[in-house]
Amino acid sequence: MRIAVINPNSTASMTAKIGRVAQAAARSDTEILALNPPDSPASIEGYYDEAMSLAPLLRTLQQQQDTGKVDAFVIACFDDTGLDAARCLTTAPVIGIGEAAYHMASLVANKFSVVTTLPRSIPALEHNLTRYGLISRCARVRAASVPVLELERAGSDAGLRIRAEIEAALREDQAEAIVLGCAGMADLADQLSAEYGVPVLDGVRCAVALAEAMVSIRLQTGKTGGYALPVLDKGEV
Amino acid sequence: MRIAVINPNSTASMTAKIGRVAQAAARSDTEILALNPPDSPASIEGYYDEAMSLAPLLRTLQQQQDTGKVDAFVIACFDDTGLDAARCLTTAPVIGIGEAAYHMASLVANKFSVVTTLPRSIPALEHNLTRYGLISRCARVRAASVPVLELERAGSDAGLRIRAEIEAALREDQAEAIVLGCAGMADLADQLSAEYGVPVLDGVRCAVALAEAMVSIRLQTGKTGGYALPVLDKGEV
Amino acid sequence: MRIAVINPNSTASMTAKIGRVAQAAARSDTEILALNPPDSPASIEGYYDEAMSLAPLLRTLQQQQDTGKVDAFVIACFDDTGLDAARCLTTAPVIGIGEAAYHMASLVANKFSVVTTLPRSIPALEHNLTRYGLISRCARVRAASVPVLELERAGSDAGLRIRAEIEAALREDQAEAIVLGCAGMADLADQLSAEYGVPVLDGVRCAVALAEAMVSIRLQTGKTGGYALPVLDKGEV
Amino acid sequence: MRIAVINPNSTASMTAKIGRVAQAAARSDTEILALNPPDSPASIEGYYDEAMSLAPLLRTLQQQQDTGKVDAFVIACFDDTGLDAARCLTTAPVIGIGEAAYHMASLVANKFSVVTTLPRSIPALEHNLTRYGLISRCARVRAASVPVLELERAGSDAGLRIRAEIEAALREDQAEAIVLGCAGMADLADQLSAEYGVPVLDGVRCAVALAEAMVSIRLQTGKTGGYALPVLDKGEV
Amino acid sequence: MRIAVINPNSTASMTAKIGRVAQAAARSDTEILALNPPDSPASIEGYYDEAMSLAPLLRTLQQQQDTGKVDAFVIACFDDTGLDAARCLTTAPVIGIGEAAYHMASLVANKFSVVTTLPRSIPALEHNLTRYGLISRCARVRAASVPVLELERAGSDAGLRIRAEIEAALREDQAEAIVLGCAGMADLADQLSAEYGVPVLDGVRCAVALAEAMVSIRLQTGKTGGYALPVLDKGEV
Amino acid sequence: MRIAVINPNSTASMTAKIGRVAQAAARSDTEILALNPPDSPASIEGYYDEAMSLAPLLRTLQQQQDTGKVDAFVIACFDDTGLDAARCLTTAPVIGIGEAAYHMASLVANKFSVVTTLPRSIPALEHNLTRYGLISRCARVRAASVPVLELERAGSDAGLRIRAEIEAALREDQAEAIVLGCAGMADLADQLSAEYGVPVLDGVRCAVALAEAMVSIRLQTGKTGGYALPVLDKGEV
Repeated sequence: MRIAVINPNSTASMTAKIGRVAQAAARSDTEILALNPPDSPASIEGYYDEAMSLAPLLRTLQQQQDTGKVDAFVIACFDDTGLDAARCLTTAPVIGIGEAAYHMASLVANKFSVVTTLPRSIPALEHNLTRYGLISRCARVRAASVPVLELERAGSDAGLRIRAEIEAALREDQAEAIVLGCAGMADLADQLSAEYGVPVLDGVRCAVALAEAMVSIRLQTGKTGGYALPVLDKGEV
Repeated sequence: MRIAVINPNSTASMTAKIGRVAQAAARSDTEILALNPPDSPASIEGYYDEAMSLAPLLRTLQQQQDTGKVDAFVIACFDDTGLDAARCLTTAPVIGIGEAAYHMASLVANKFSVVTTLPRSIPALEHNLTRYGLISRCARVRAASVPVLELERAGSDAGLRIRAEIEAALREDQAEAIVLGCAGMADLADQLSAEYGVPVLDGVRCAVALAEAMVSIRLQTGKTGGYALPVLDKGEV
Repeated sequence: MRIAVINPNSTASMTAKIGRVAQAAARSDTEILALNPPDSPASIEGYYDEAMSLAPLLRTLQQQQDTGKVDAFVIACFDDTGLDAARCLTTAPVIGIGEAAYHMASLVANKFSVVTTLPRSIPALEHNLTRYGLISRCARVRAASVPVLELERAGSDAGLRIRAEIEAALREDQAEAIVLGCAGMADLADQLSAEYGVPVLDGVRCAVALAEAMVSIRLQTGKTGGYALPVLDKGEV
Repeated sequence: MRIAVINPNSTASMTAKIGRVAQAAARSDTEILALNPPDSPASIEGYYDEAMSLAPLLRTLQQQQDTGKVDAFVIACFDDTGLDAARCLTTAPVIGIGEAAYHMASLVANKFSVVTTLPRSIPALEHNLTRYGLISRCARVRAASVPVLELERAGSDAGLRIRAEIEAALREDQAEAIVLGCAGMADLADQLSAEYGVPVLDGVRCAVALAEAMVSIRLQTGKTGGYALPVLDKGEV
Repeated sequence: MRIAVINPNSTASMTAKIGRVAQAAARSDTEILALNPPDSPASIEGYYDEAMSLAPLLRTLQQQQDTGKVDAFVIACFDDTGLDAARCLTTAPVIGIGEAAYHMASLVANKFSVVTTLPRSIPALEHNLTRYGLISRCARVRAASVPVLELERAGSDAGLRIRAEIEAALREDQAEAIVLGCAGMADLADQLSAEYGVPVLDGVRCAVALAEAMVSIRLQTGKTGGYALPVLDKGEV
Repeated sequence: MRIAVINPNSTASMTAKIGRVAQAAARSDTEILALNPPDSPASIEGYYDEAMSLAPLLRTLQQQQDTGKVDAFVIACFDDTGLDAARCLTTAPVIGIGEAAYHMASLVANKFSVVTTLPRSIPALEHNLTRYGLISRCARVRAASVPVLELERAGSDAGLRIRAEIEAALREDQAEAIVLGCAGMADLADQLSAEYGVPVLDGVRCAVALAEAMVSIRLQTGKTGGYALPVLDKGEV
């Protein structure tokens, strides 16, 4: 099958990293298309970046949809940017990496904590958790005070700061699993899971595996309510 | 004071109606700027239209912000499209007409019901109510099965369909007030309130009055968390 | 317009302070009547004081209502003492300063914390927040361990203790705004807002501005459910 | 032991009925004092009556408390009028008949429905259920459209209307038990329970039995937080 | 009346202690049968022990039910092991000691904290509180890191560790009452209540008193929904 | 990989059906072991059957675990019987078919309704949804009044009754997807999905696909909190 993994920001090194992680997590017969839309923000940090990334993201998704060859879509931003709008464009499954990680964590832990990048992103993640219904499974959303692009820079102390928050979560939150709250942390999960002896979840892998699962049982996005196809020609007034 | 009321769709007749209602509701010394961004959808019906309207909406808001002469902003779409992103761009108050109506209804009724346009918009409104915390005050979100632009057409039976849902809400939902769930219904509130003997709230008026209230007590949007100013230059990677 | 601001306790200096703050916050053409009912407790600190203040409060409100010249009522106790009962007596808007501050804070911050006087008042405030639906927007209700009347005494260290709680809220609660949880703190909001660089809300001002807003759009209290007029003559048994 | 059962309204026939039901439900060595405060409303129907009954209710409770001979208090109004304030006056258990019935129903049914008197009382009951935490156990609060005092009148069709709501609750709400939502219905529970084959709970009996239970294990009202004794002398300002 | 108090673990010294506490709490005319099923785990610590104790527990309950001489059942494990299943077997009241303590604590405190044995038991208790609806009344579930059987050993420092958590709860949680979260702590409640000046509740006593209360008002378990009698002969397929 | 799918009831025809559906849904390189424990109830209908099936279920799971050759476990009863206890026995993923369907439905629909067998099972399903956090995504749990074993009988009208509830859900609940609430309905999903044009989810397929997804990304059950391995030897007292 073919899964389009769209990183809604324009940082190519991050898209490449996401693509590597996604392909490594996928079945051998799954093809990963890692894409980043042109004209989008360099990183998605908070509500404004999210909003400005939407139109490019949706156009890229529509282009892939029009090829008729994509079986599922993954939105590779932990804010699940544009997820609901994207679902309106296709009957194929569309998975956000944030929701993928939350759902998966709920299957292996009574409660989990999230470690994300900057404090400014916390409210958006809490809003998502509330909407999805999984806020009661989340002990706490923590910020490591690491800008997204810092994760791309050699020599950064981002790893130390992320570890400090994981340790605080295990000590104070009664968290039984940790969710890494940024696509840019996708390559850290295995190492951290081994270090701390708890499940550490990366949304990219979770989303790819969920997308494969949904395609394999032919589960499609509902089209009769909020995810109905957009009416593009609304007539004259 | 000057309030910019931005209708995030591109239908000029609707913007004009919103402007008239807003100006009629405003204090005599308040100037209403009713704007609709170019290149936005003809109407906002569901998640996809919301997403596609965001960039034009935020650019229009930023232009007004740059004049230095706007005291508050109103987003005149009942989905409160782009509200959080807009709050990141300014310290001035930014009010969505949906949230304005929900908060105001909570001050005059134990529970209220919402009557909106199409069923496809219900999930987005329920998401907003959940995020705002006011879902427990809302008895039910109902759809009159009236497309937004139908509200602009002479000879439409939209009024009949809206009345049918109001009557159902009063009979079945124990609603003590009705919130009209579309900016295009702004001119109906007084008539319906008189007909049914309950508060019928239009978000445009509620938002203008709330904006005036916030400006008069110099209340500003917080800038230390989720509504921090966007970082536009994120450096090279 | 004329707004009756009723301080349900009997401390005249506090009523005078509330009146000054209210008048300063009001439009130039708004007349503030600051009243305190006779025979009420010296301060409202917890459930018992609330209960004992109700009958005098409601009688004062009814007297003002009977003049036919009051456009809106404000209950100037942060516990929103008697708010629902008061709404039964009139079609005019009735606003509690607690709810006014919570609703306003929800419009400028993702989450807010409350700083009130004594710990014994915390449960009553949490009950109100739960009923209003806004508990999910409140990070924490904190007590500065300052009795209400201490706020009226020269030389008190109340200011220091309030600041200590504000600082804790900003450090620990991810609060993006602070709500001052007592009418007696009404004169501190501007100074604290400037000191801490976050919105610090005083309920008196919020309530006056909201009352003006509601009157300006002719929004009235619903009369068909829980706020129906009391049946005073219930007949003989 | 001695239990003071205070009917916060002034209708003597209702107090007598409550007293009879309470005594019949009590242990043989329990003495029931059925009291109604002077100067209170003839019935408690909604927020205003509740508020006006508080001072007389609390004075009556304090008088009984001062005798030093009362082991527990029951507030025999289904709105649990003044319950929190009453708890501030004593270390003895204080039980409202509404909460007593809700807690007891939660022990014999997955979900229960409430059948109360007038629709205007529904919001107050829902507020209580929300505060107590038991709203999730309550399928629905229904009103039989029977004024409280109608329950005291011979020849009334109140019984028919109550039965109609019970039948609707069993048919539509998946209720496994019924709570009768007025002290004036206390004498109907056994008959209705037999008729419908489900637990039908009357709050008076539930509260008396709970009060006996709490006294028997010497459980007392906490005095370190919201139920701390009132500070009656607050000093001069 | 006769109450069967079933300790679902097989530790006889604990059953004896539970029996003593139960009998001491009961009315003089109540007979306590303290039982522990054969073939059950030595202690119930977490989900697995709970599951393995169910069949022996239910068989023991059925045997007692078959005598026709038991008026109520108490399940004396703080996890309320098998409570719902047990309710299916009888019309008599069945009370879990966990739920009994939570309900009773809700009648004397605005919020309570729980102090249980091992951290592994916390999720199960939080699940119960969520299901019962009382999670909003519980400030926090704390673990003293004391294995259940440690409570049975002379010379254990369990008492110190429990006190440390109680002190933390009173200092940090705004708890107005403490619930002891293990049947093995049943003998500590009076002493701890006296030491800390707050209600300290033991579930065994609460459950016995509640069972007596329910029997005295002839309240029975509903049989029309989730607690319907099991269908034992389901026919051939 | 190898997935053990355990049907906790003893009806072999149902286990065979579950096995066929599971194998058909699995990847070509996945081996499905469909098992039903001896000595379990013929069907799981409500709390009592659940409880009595636990010990056999857990013993079967432990036996498979001891082979060292099982990569994941599926509990093929829609009540998710014993799910938490099972998770304590292994680091492999353990998925209940109920939770699998709820999580999957949340990814393709704003809200879903459940159609289960008998009304007596509704409370247990609602408890699960509440615990998982997904109750806010579920519009309603409906019962088709079809006993589980009726689904195994030729000539049954079960299909008609299930369709009637699906139609009611689509008409009244604003459900955008339907979850079939019994393992015995596993073979109906495709046909019903085609008939109604909405996603109709069967938990068996969802659980198998989720299990494969979790194994493929090496996600394991957390062992540091509620799912810690049981302590089997607790020492002497």
